[in-house]
Amino acid sequence: MKASKDTRQRLINSASDLFYSRSYGHVGVKEICEKAGVQKGSFYHFFPSKEKLTLAVLDEHFAFFKDEIIARSFNPAIPPMQRIDLLMENAYLFQKKIKEETGKTLGCPYGNISAEMSTLSESIQKITSDFFHRIEVGFIGVLEEAISKGDIEAINVEATATAMVSYIEGIMLLAKNRDDPELIKSLSSALSQIRIEE
Amino acid sequence: MKASKDTRQRLINSASDLFYSRSYGHVGVKEICEKAGVQKGSFYHFFPSKEKLTLAVLDEHFAFFKDEIIARSFNPAIPPMQRIDLLMENAYLFQKKIKEETGKTLGCPYGNISAEMSTLSESIQKITSDFFHRIEVGFIGVLEEAISKGDIEAINVEATATAMVSYIEGIMLLAKNRDDPELIKSLSSALSQIRIEE
Repeated sequence: MKASKDTRQRLINSASDLFYSRSYGHVGVKEICEKAGVQKGSFYHFFPSKEKLTLAVLDEHFAFFKDEIIARSFNPAIPPMQRIDLLMENAYLFQKKIKEETGKTLGCPYGNISAEMSTLSESIQKITSDFFHRIEVGFIGVLEEAISKGDIEAINVEATATAMVSYIEGIMLLAKNRDDPELIKSLSSALSQIRIEE
Repeated sequence: MKASKDTRQRLINSASDLFYSRSYGHVGVKEICEKAGVQKGSFYHFFPSKEKLTLAVLDEHFAFFKDEIIARSFNPAIPPMQRIDLLMENAYLFQKKIKEETGKTLGCPYGNISAEMSTLSESIQKITSDFFHRIEVGFIGVLEEAISKGDIEAINVEATATAMVSYIEGIMLLAKNRDDPELIKSLSSALSQIRIEE
């Protein structure tokens, strides 16, 4: 049972590294198995397809993101709008670490795979859409609290939250393109200033 | 000579449609040739690789983008900051047309392929980076004019232009993800409000 769990996890870790540093379409089951040290026959015991494995990989990214970025940023002890700045700071630190570890700025794993796969896989479209929505829900809570405290004027909180997610995803895309995590830092101040009027 | 030009163009058109509606990694030379009605042997007469064909496809996208989006938006007769709003309006109309024609919102062809290929192909990284830079240069001109006319306060024009490109790319990514061109319209008002201080 434990060995089986380990094998499954090794496949997830292997696929996670390969997809994130390259792309979904450029990584095959054979390579994922080789990197994980798992026989190709075993792969299909754990996952019916590369697509299903990808969903497990993205769930894993989310667990990390929730603990390392969301929980550290959306801290109720901090004034609401400052949490948004902190989210960008943590996103910057994460991308800097990724570059130190892998040699490259890899951007947002959800943004990357969404750009590549949204029109090709309904389940990958859905899981990435859910991810963006979860971040939006976080922003909506922060914005509503800021409005109720009188820190900001009344705005369209839903649209503003979507605009904030868009801005982050665009920054991540450009940071990956330029292989430069410092870009995140230099553009971060505008995030908490975004407003869509009612 | 003419037949040869036609064949080359047919390959570009075929690859353009296939890459844009799907992705780079999920489309092979065989399928590009079949759609173009060109023998696979002929392909390599025109392009040494799929990667080189992709550069020609992206050049074509840029020619279109320059005429249909940039030229129509960055019109010197219009007050500078309104040109930025107009750019978003034209980007929205373009994505709406794409959805009407193909059934799907396909986002930005440069953003999509950059997210997929930035770490995998130096030449694709470079051509997408050049594209983002050209849009930034356009924004820098607009922002400098707006500052000199007193329409907006002095800001860091380079960083603000990069922030604007990021915001657009993020919106395009989410519009593709949700298959909804209306998202562009609902988020567009924040673009010309983005400021990065000096």
